Amino acid sequence: MANLSASYSFTVRIQLDRRPGTFARVAAAVAEAGGDLGAVDIARSSSAHLWRDVTVAATDTEHAQRIVDAIVAAGDGIEVEHVSDRTFLMHLGGKLEIRSRVPLKTRDDLSMAYTPGVGRICEAIAEDPERAWALTIKRNTVAVVSDGTAVLGLGDIGPEAAMPVMEGKAVLFKRFANVDAWPICLDTTDVEEIIAAVKAIAPGFGGINLEDISAPRCFEIERRLREELDIPVFHDDQHGTAVVVLAALIGTARLLERELSDLKVVVLGAGAAGTAVARLLHDGGVRDLIGIDRKGILHADRGDMADEPHAWWAETTNPRNVTGGIDEALTGADVFIGLSGPNLVTTEQVARMADGAAVFAMANPVPEIHPEDVPPNVRVVATGRSDYPNQINNVLCFPGLFRGALDVRAHAIDEGMKVAAAHAIAEVIPAEQLSEEYIIPSVFNEEVATAVAHAVAAAARESGTARRMPDGAAPLYVPGGKA
Amino acid sequence: MANLSASYSFTVRIQLDRRPGTFARVAAAVAEAGGDLGAVDIARSSSAHLWRDVTVAATDTEHAQRIVDAIVAAGDGIEVEHVSDRTFLMHLGGKLEIRSRVPLKTRDDLSMAYTPGVGRICEAIAEDPERAWALTIKRNTVAVVSDGTAVLGLGDIGPEAAMPVMEGKAVLFKRFANVDAWPICLDTTDVEEIIAAVKAIAPGFGGINLEDISAPRCFEIERRLREELDIPVFHDDQHGTAVVVLAALIGTARLLERELSDLKVVVLGAGAAGTAVARLLHDGGVRDLIGIDRKGILHADRGDMADEPHAWWAETTNPRNVTGGIDEALTGADVFIGLSGPNLVTTEQVARMADGAAVFAMANPVPEIHPEDVPPNVRVVATGRSDYPNQINNVLCFPGLFRGALDVRAHAIDEGMKVAAAHAIAEVIPAEQLSEEYIIPSVFNEEVATAVAHAVAAAARESGTARRMPDGAAPLYVPGGKA
Repeated sequence: MANLSASYSFTVRIQLDRRPGTFARVAAAVAEAGGDLGAVDIARSSSAHLWRDVTVAATDTEHAQRIVDAIVAAGDGIEVEHVSDRTFLMHLGGKLEIRSRVPLKTRDDLSMAYTPGVGRICEAIAEDPERAWALTIKRNTVAVVSDGTAVLGLGDIGPEAAMPVMEGKAVLFKRFANVDAWPICLDTTDVEEIIAAVKAIAPGFGGINLEDISAPRCFEIERRLREELDIPVFHDDQHGTAVVVLAALIGTARLLERELSDLKVVVLGAGAAGTAVARLLHDGGVRDLIGIDRKGILHADRGDMADEPHAWWAETTNPRNVTGGIDEALTGADVFIGLSGPNLVTTEQVARMADGAAVFAMANPVPEIHPEDVPPNVRVVATGRSDYPNQINNVLCFPGLFRGALDVRAHAIDEGMKVAAAHAIAEVIPAEQLSEEYIIPSVFNEEVATAVAHAVAAAARESGTARRMPDGAAPLYVPGGKA
Repeated sequence: MANLSASYSFTVRIQLDRRPGTFARVAAAVAEAGGDLGAVDIARSSSAHLWRDVTVAATDTEHAQRIVDAIVAAGDGIEVEHVSDRTFLMHLGGKLEIRSRVPLKTRDDLSMAYTPGVGRICEAIAEDPERAWALTIKRNTVAVVSDGTAVLGLGDIGPEAAMPVMEGKAVLFKRFANVDAWPICLDTTDVEEIIAAVKAIAPGFGGINLEDISAPRCFEIERRLREELDIPVFHDDQHGTAVVVLAALIGTARLLERELSDLKVVVLGAGAAGTAVARLLHDGGVRDLIGIDRKGILHADRGDMADEPHAWWAETTNPRNVTGGIDEALTGADVFIGLSGPNLVTTEQVARMADGAAVFAMANPVPEIHPEDVPPNVRVVATGRSDYPNQINNVLCFPGLFRGALDVRAHAIDEGMKVAAAHAIAEVIPAEQLSEEYIIPSVFNEEVATAVAHAVAAAARESGTARRMPDGAAPLYVPGGKA
């Protein structure tokens, strides 16, 4: 049976005759249709009728409709009044609001927060724009920017339709790391226009989180913005994924008592995410890396390896110069990392891997191979899904990463900060708690964001990417003096 | 004596010897230096010393420094440890933060607010982008956009330095009308780049509030954005000012029992604000309007009247074809409206006005003529300042105006909505409470924003600018059905 999920649950208001057994028929209809009965509340009652709000979890929209149909068909004395969908209710009106951090009760408050007092704050920043880090929201603010071209698995759905994901991301930023993130969905897919718009809005933000922008445009957009802005620019689909995959690999290596440099790693999918993952694994110490794209294994002798990012693969990976496809790549491999599509790898192919292998099948929602289908030589299985152990989810990375970057007012997020984040995530799990089903912490582990933030801030200070040293709280402004 | 203001107040920590009379010397020093002693707290104590935090209001930064110097000089047993400026403290770290409107405690919450549940919300909006009004923050969100070129009286101070004002504006939007406004300060002053950036970020917003953009660029930017976007675009410095001035004029006319069409009105300052005010006064019913710019009275025979906005003045105003300067314009006039600079009008000039005249001297912080200096023929005086009666402040307009526009999902803010807002502001004051010192409500009058919102929404429905009728709550999504 497919997975029942709260994200496909709904609430039905049903008018029931007050006769024994009426609700039992509803419950039976739900069960027969494969629904999972949750809360049952009484909404209203009269002498003849009872109105109940019944919450049911389903597997998907069609399943929900079949369950509602089954209730409607459950017979006399049962009437469905309306159906409301819990997920849609949750999103009604959007998921964010703004709060003022200052009181505004009296004229004195107004004269300090707004005119005329605010003028002095403006003058102080005009004198030295770096003071914006102390005296404005820049200190704690990230723009979550998308053009809506590669949203989840839905593809190019446009900026309005991308908003719910970007709002959700902002909710996660706040929830896990107290970062104030604001969604900016752009009404253009033109590379130059996107770069110009992001540069234009940058002064009020302490960082830019690019999101769900399709390849290959995402490479150019990120590269240019990194060059032209002095705040962190981070394409989460690439680098956030890379950090959490490296974290999972570090966790696996700890469990297996192996070194990253000893592992034979295969990456299926050489697009934006796959390339970023391979690059960071290399920076993190992996030496035997093989990439596979639609045409097979990437190797230096292939005819199409001249351009970036292929040239990087040709130069850096595949030291044994393996050729062929998935079969050849997986033979004797220790780790398989899938960043591709559903059901692209078979049980037989995975069986070619070394004993004690690890499979990270990250395609979402349907992985490259279902955890149920991996053969016995595989010791560790991880996916992107929350309903299996070892969920590799970017939520483990981006809140703490930006927290750390903002805390030191970093100019950028460099490779060292990403590697540090991956180690911090992995090392939240004490060695004695590591197991096949626990190589990476849960997304709800409250320690992760803080550990990542500290590690990232330390790495930024070490590399010189930090503008600000620890405990370097901005000095208070002294009237007539210098801030 | 200049005005003491909370916006120039500061807190001094002083270490005092425990001897009688020590603090009295501090208090005397503050008083002698012209400071106003506020709260006095004990911060710490030892057997020999007492540390006090003393809050003092001053007139400006230099005055604050003189007061601190006076305390330092107050003699033995008194040591200033540090000084903190209350206004700077209030702005430290910025004035806004983001709050999540959805719970995020369990995996179920996460699966509904974020992946996989959010995918269904995205799909619903991709199918019909108008659903973004129901299912995203667009419904309640305004971008406060500035390029930092005309901030308060400070001029072109750049985007970072403009942030504190735009944050303050967002605080006011939330405080008075529960509108979620986000500050966007642009790192460009190029008209085409500003237009492109605002168009690019528009999908996530339900309205655009332009702010502190210098003339003449502000005209073109607003005109083009109004044409090219289907959400309200409103340059507050022009139209917000126009609405509150019209409201003050309506209040004055009610007090004087005159019709707007009977009043002779003079506007000093024919820039962005002056022109917008004159246009709206005309739309509101004023017929005898005379504008004055640096070269004198605007009249059709002047040589420089071909281009907008001069052509509008030539065509629409000055029906008696008065020529000359301030003296000629004010002779027999009923209302003077200053949107120009400090001390530009003399007592003698104002004495030329009709008996029972009204003077709105809006230059800030120093008005065209100080309220103390108006001659006895003037019955009503209003300014932009909070320390005199009749403060004409844009805060009376923009929160309720956007509240009303968002509530009906307006395409634009048209002239009818602005005139309706002005009437709503004025009519918050019951006729029997009107007086020379109370022609316009206080910025803290809690009724204003609601009254404005209702009037604006009604006007938008009447003109067809509204997308949505009252009580038109979005229907709930039914699984398998249509939203």
